[in-house]
Amino acid sequence: MNAKESGRRKFLKGGVALAGLAVGGLRVASGQSSGAEAAASPHKDSRTYGERSRFDTAERQPTGAAPYGDTALVTPIQALTGIITPAGLHFVMDHLAGVPDIDPQQHRLMIHGMVDRPLIFTVEELKRLPSVSRIHFLECNANSRPLQGPKAESVQQVHGKTSCSEWTGVLLSLLLQEASVQAGASWLVSEGAEGNKYTKSLPLAKAMEDVLVAYGQNGEPVRPEQGFPLRLLVPGWEANYSTKWLRRIKIVDQPYMTQHESTHNANLHPDGKAHWFRFEMGVKSVITRPCGGQKLPSPGFYEITGLAWSGGGTVRKVEVSTDGGRTWKNAELQQPVHRKAHTRFRLPWTWDGNETILQSRCTDDQGEMQPTIAELAKIWEVSTDYFLGSGVDHFNAIQPWKVNRDGSVHNALFS
Amino acid sequence: MNAKESGRRKFLKGGVALAGLAVGGLRVASGQSSGAEAAASPHKDSRTYGERSRFDTAERQPTGAAPYGDTALVTPIQALTGIITPAGLHFVMDHLAGVPDIDPQQHRLMIHGMVDRPLIFTVEELKRLPSVSRIHFLECNANSRPLQGPKAESVQQVHGKTSCSEWTGVLLSLLLQEASVQAGASWLVSEGAEGNKYTKSLPLAKAMEDVLVAYGQNGEPVRPEQGFPLRLLVPGWEANYSTKWLRRIKIVDQPYMTQHESTHNANLHPDGKAHWFRFEMGVKSVITRPCGGQKLPSPGFYEITGLAWSGGGTVRKVEVSTDGGRTWKNAELQQPVHRKAHTRFRLPWTWDGNETILQSRCTDDQGEMQPTIAELAKIWEVSTDYFLGSGVDHFNAIQPWKVNRDGSVHNALFS
Repeated sequence: MNAKESGRRKFLKGGVALAGLAVGGLRVASGQSSGAEAAASPHKDSRTYGERSRFDTAERQPTGAAPYGDTALVTPIQALTGIITPAGLHFVMDHLAGVPDIDPQQHRLMIHGMVDRPLIFTVEELKRLPSVSRIHFLECNANSRPLQGPKAESVQQVHGKTSCSEWTGVLLSLLLQEASVQAGASWLVSEGAEGNKYTKSLPLAKAMEDVLVAYGQNGEPVRPEQGFPLRLLVPGWEANYSTKWLRRIKIVDQPYMTQHESTHNANLHPDGKAHWFRFEMGVKSVITRPCGGQKLPSPGFYEITGLAWSGGGTVRKVEVSTDGGRTWKNAELQQPVHRKAHTRFRLPWTWDGNETILQSRCTDDQGEMQPTIAELAKIWEVSTDYFLGSGVDHFNAIQPWKVNRDGSVHNALFS
Repeated sequence: MNAKESGRRKFLKGGVALAGLAVGGLRVASGQSSGAEAAASPHKDSRTYGERSRFDTAERQPTGAAPYGDTALVTPIQALTGIITPAGLHFVMDHLAGVPDIDPQQHRLMIHGMVDRPLIFTVEELKRLPSVSRIHFLECNANSRPLQGPKAESVQQVHGKTSCSEWTGVLLSLLLQEASVQAGASWLVSEGAEGNKYTKSLPLAKAMEDVLVAYGQNGEPVRPEQGFPLRLLVPGWEANYSTKWLRRIKIVDQPYMTQHESTHNANLHPDGKAHWFRFEMGVKSVITRPCGGQKLPSPGFYEITGLAWSGGGTVRKVEVSTDGGRTWKNAELQQPVHRKAHTRFRLPWTWDGNETILQSRCTDDQGEMQPTIAELAKIWEVSTDYFLGSGVDHFNAIQPWKVNRDGSVHNALFS
């Protein structure tokens, strides 16, 4: 840690050191390929880049419940093991503009606005800077809406807008210190390089806390659908803050109420007022096995397993009830538990063949505990019917799964 | 932890509980896919399972230095970020039999020999049992041989037979307790399902310590080239202990000197004696950026980064020298550091434009420190020329990279 800190100080002491970075970065001699090489050589075969078994049929699914005409692809969280989401199965929210095909050698990131030293980086220049890798989830604010139409039995359809990766990149705070943010600045606006130039306002305090400019995802370059070659990564917050195909960060003194913010992510409450600028995703958990749509073949031993996470910090406890909420047991948490990351929980269970309800509830290190739907309705001052609306976001109530005597498992949220 | 332990006890108390497991496991209702479904539906497009950018050209390479006519595909470790190796880039050693195309619903794992209760599991039955996920490296005993012919400048060619994944599965100790190993048993022989039935002897003590029967890799099913649907995972030991396409474990009272053991993995020392049964991979590290074959475009700031690991335990310290070994600085280790796993290290460095040598050395929690090639020759009682032989395994000397004034980086192991 000291080496890192002193390295940063040294790096920053240079002040205009970045200006000395030659465009192009590390060059690669012939005979050795690199993730940043520009040549568009097609991948030769599955030996050079391996593929899945043809029997592994877990797939992202489209969902008809994407907001405002966007399309969404949801992660098959019922098929995941551990805490890493394979990049090919990471959920996608497509804000109408499709996935741009960006040549990383042509791509630039500009930092400007209320700064003393506006900066422009190539991707290779960013890769020369002090980097960090951190495991974080990304979750869409629309995840877990109670009813997604006829597919509501599917944990993938209801809860599949969350994924978790090992992200690698440069701390945005380092870049902003280098750019020297001016007094009075309080927000930034990030912009993507896709067709309709997605933009989003972010408070400067969060930018200085733990935000990354990420170029790596699960060991390789960020995937195109997640923002290749650069993505802003805003841990714990609505995924729409984590601007993909990041090309510009403007330091400003107010939120900008950009088109995407005002049309996509402002939702009405019963009193007709809109909620702007909701940030952190709540404390949540969901049992992914057994789950709605599955069937237990017989009574006997099962491991109950699922994922828990909290935008507010670190998962401290996941309790599981196998008797309709009368008693709760602490599940085992996969170690180490990462901050603002999916956390795998596991509990052994012997099914006696009787009807029952399985549910999990998460508590984070801030002491926040996942509510029941009735408790959530009380907090929001709405009736539970309100949650059937298509504009409901940040829904984090406990998900009950009912096991019938025939072993079939069903969504029991409204039962 | 207590939940897990009590769960194991409960599970084991049943004794013959496993006999009650119905073949088939969790069934999946229509409309929801699962990793274990048998239907061989082709993957529709890159929306259902995403692909890399066409500009991401990092690939596994064949190596001409695979032993005994086998073919090897080596991981582009110079292109990796963080500690996870993407499954498509995991190194492969192909012991002449190719990759079998196994239907997981037809696959079985048999545990027999010196046990009271011989057991046969389907994959779905294994997935019902208490599971663990752990991040571990796998390294070929032939990795890091000093000279791999004309491609010796390439860190991928020399050091690319190591990869690191989040593995998920059942502890073998749990299965062996359930099978009830008989007194006098001391080894097991594991067998794969490929054409030539790879077999390997493993001491029972290791089997009871931390060995997994793995079905998950980086969140999804183990890839075909890594053993789909089941792989033995023997943490820290030569990767050839981690039998792929695992179908049989026979409990025995002696090592079996199987064909693969005697023809592939017994190497001659200068005195003509063969080394059988070498187990643990040594303490090792290598700088992957900058590395041989790359070129620094100009003097200035760079982050030096690389990977360190030890089969003996946990990486405690990685020191980096940028002045030919005169002084060493502690690099920052990516947190958390996992046991028997790749560990990312990073050190900020400003290149002044002069010729120099970069090198890293790892120390693990057993106090083992990575030696220089001269120190290693002394330990092995050989001359350094001995390491140029094609039979050298377990080579873990410090890897020096020479930076020339023109910025080119070269392998300086023998300089």
